[in-house]
Amino acid sequence: MRMYDIILKKRNGERLSDEEIGFFIDGYTRGEIPDYQASALCMAICLRGMDDDETAALTYSMARSGDMLDLSRFGELSSDKHSTGGVGDKTSLIVGPIAAALGAKVTKMSGRGLGHTGGTVDKLESIPGMRMTISREEFLDQCDKVGLAIIGQSGNMTPADKKLYALRDVTATVDSIPLITSSIMSKKLAAGSHNIVLDVKTGSGAFMKTYEDSKKLAESMVKIGKLCGRNMAALITDMDRPLGYAVGNSLEIIEAVEVLKGERKGDLYEVCIALATEMVMLFKGITHEEAQAQAVGAIESGAAFAKMKEWIAAQGGDVSCLDDTKRFAEVHPVSHIVPILSPTDGYITSMDAAEIGTAAMILGAGRSTKEESIDYGAGLTIEAKTGDRVEKGMTLGYLYTNREDAVKPAEERYLAALTFGSEAPQKTELIQGIVR
Amino acid sequence: MRMYDIILKKRNGERLSDEEIGFFIDGYTRGEIPDYQASALCMAICLRGMDDDETAALTYSMARSGDMLDLSRFGELSSDKHSTGGVGDKTSLIVGPIAAALGAKVTKMSGRGLGHTGGTVDKLESIPGMRMTISREEFLDQCDKVGLAIIGQSGNMTPADKKLYALRDVTATVDSIPLITSSIMSKKLAAGSHNIVLDVKTGSGAFMKTYEDSKKLAESMVKIGKLCGRNMAALITDMDRPLGYAVGNSLEIIEAVEVLKGERKGDLYEVCIALATEMVMLFKGITHEEAQAQAVGAIESGAAFAKMKEWIAAQGGDVSCLDDTKRFAEVHPVSHIVPILSPTDGYITSMDAAEIGTAAMILGAGRSTKEESIDYGAGLTIEAKTGDRVEKGMTLGYLYTNREDAVKPAEERYLAALTFGSEAPQKTELIQGIVR
Repeated sequence: MRMYDIILKKRNGERLSDEEIGFFIDGYTRGEIPDYQASALCMAICLRGMDDDETAALTYSMARSGDMLDLSRFGELSSDKHSTGGVGDKTSLIVGPIAAALGAKVTKMSGRGLGHTGGTVDKLESIPGMRMTISREEFLDQCDKVGLAIIGQSGNMTPADKKLYALRDVTATVDSIPLITSSIMSKKLAAGSHNIVLDVKTGSGAFMKTYEDSKKLAESMVKIGKLCGRNMAALITDMDRPLGYAVGNSLEIIEAVEVLKGERKGDLYEVCIALATEMVMLFKGITHEEAQAQAVGAIESGAAFAKMKEWIAAQGGDVSCLDDTKRFAEVHPVSHIVPILSPTDGYITSMDAAEIGTAAMILGAGRSTKEESIDYGAGLTIEAKTGDRVEKGMTLGYLYTNREDAVKPAEERYLAALTFGSEAPQKTELIQGIVR
Repeated sequence: MRMYDIILKKRNGERLSDEEIGFFIDGYTRGEIPDYQASALCMAICLRGMDDDETAALTYSMARSGDMLDLSRFGELSSDKHSTGGVGDKTSLIVGPIAAALGAKVTKMSGRGLGHTGGTVDKLESIPGMRMTISREEFLDQCDKVGLAIIGQSGNMTPADKKLYALRDVTATVDSIPLITSSIMSKKLAAGSHNIVLDVKTGSGAFMKTYEDSKKLAESMVKIGKLCGRNMAALITDMDRPLGYAVGNSLEIIEAVEVLKGERKGDLYEVCIALATEMVMLFKGITHEEAQAQAVGAIESGAAFAKMKEWIAAQGGDVSCLDDTKRFAEVHPVSHIVPILSPTDGYITSMDAAEIGTAAMILGAGRSTKEESIDYGAGLTIEAKTGDRVEKGMTLGYLYTNREDAVKPAEERYLAALTFGSEAPQKTELIQGIVR
């Protein structure tokens, strides 16, 4: 078998066999197939596509390119959740405790943030003492006892995806449904959970800008997951504006705690209940109505918040910060908390979520390159969102930062991300679609 | 400007600007743009195409990536010829002397052979004393005095093409009209001639297997040449069987001499007259009828053969070998001359020219890798071609070699390249099309 022939076949629009796809992924992972051949094949895949069987073979080859977690001891209870990434997206911190409180074994490997999107690992590390790197034994033991463990990606999982993603990122071959599907789903397969709930974001702050593309991606991932023997569900949720009211690491932990305590409803709460409902349906095999009632009940009874504390404590985190979230301001103080004032009267007609994420990054909440460090106290809070009526001089939000010179550029960026009008904009649905 | 954006644009099917194409070629030639981005762009070009303006910009950028020959001293007389490569193709050795005898300044930089196709440089080097590397001053001086110089590619001409072709060769991106056009035409532009005649081979022994593809390539090259201010003509000629009767270096020189002496007519003679006619039309601006009469006259008068000897002598070649071609057998002796006998009665209904070229290579006439050396006396002669009626035991051709163990595999390959039938096959045209 020669890589040349595999490229030529896909270039000519032909199907690749499982063996050919395996030959490519194995050879590329081992460094035997050079980047220039891999990028040519990725471009051919972008333009010629792949059918479901090919995508499944690619996903499976990438999943087994490194270590695979064996969660068979948890039977059909093992559950995982993945978001395609957005701004202010702290749903894992809420959905995990709800599902674990209801009996799921939630195991999740999360990433760090880059650019305008935050990472769950960074958010959790803002809790004093929280350990995001633990041994595999400890991880499985914690899943067993607590029912929930969220850690950073470690070890040698899906090396093929790491290498291929870095290549796609510089060769304009990221934006391809089979390649995105295999990248995400290979990591999910390697992470081992039986039930997988996907949150495909759509809109200005998301990777997929249109509903149609998001739906296609959701359908592809659900299909591939099922072909690989997993229970699957995907929601398509709005990311035309940030989710919730906080963007920034400890600020988002505080917001998640407020939702779990039942103190805060709104868009974040709704999306989390919807995601938790899907997960409960999958691992319990019950109806949507039953699952939703249990998810809501887990928050109202306090069971979900108790589960969060149990989980955080198990990973060494200081639970007193969760009981009294004002403590975060002491642990991660900021020198400047600056209100953003509305420049006009009217309705907020749109918010560019990616730009608001970038404003938070400038303030210190994120990284523009992998090497940058993070200020866990920095970020911003949002007081008025799309559809809200505002008056000139009213506070639209607050900037939190220790970087004095970042205030003005972040404020400009925030305001430039908003549009105002005299008419209320059409309301967009928070949950735009479900694929099961 | 970023290479990423250029790849993305072409991936999305958009036009690239002259500046973007120049940025790519300049950056790639200097090593600033990595192979993996160049191969992704080449694949996108293969699948999305390029319009004539883009192809012209690519051609011109590649032409100016290295040295360009200034032939302006020869005004509109400078003439060049290019063949897309075939088996037994020794037309340059005949067309050059005819056109030079009629007043053209023919300057040609040729390549070496690889695989089943031979190279003009190798063929000429079979003439004792022949120098294929001469200084630029000597080259121009020879064109001035003799009107003809054919040398090997030297110096730093079209480094972009050399680098890009090597990459395309291993990434299944060779077969693309805009990329082939720019590769060939960039070398022709850099070589500086005002008049360019192209011989696009079509059929089993050619790069382009079908007439339609050959026509598209011919039209593209003629159009791009004209856009770059050159006089252009292209013939589409048959390569479903080898051209002429000899395949192998000194064997082909002998055949060319026989044609120039007026001793041998047939397919090779016809193609050479047709190519020379196009060249004479271009540099003299006369009609096809007039040009053809002059080309035929140059052979009949002996002027073309005299010009060949003048040219070979100018480059140090031993002209006595041309006067008496039997001398080649002394200079490049072979230990085995073996007849190939017909296994059957009937008509030869087809010949796979590429396979016959490979048989000659096995005998020592060519290289399977760039590092191999050549036996100038080795090769084969063809006594019966497609359409000829043969009888069992009749001699179909002769193998010439010093490699005893090559005789059997070469003979098997030769016979496997032929098909026989009881009916005469339909006659295919030698000159299948003209693009001006």
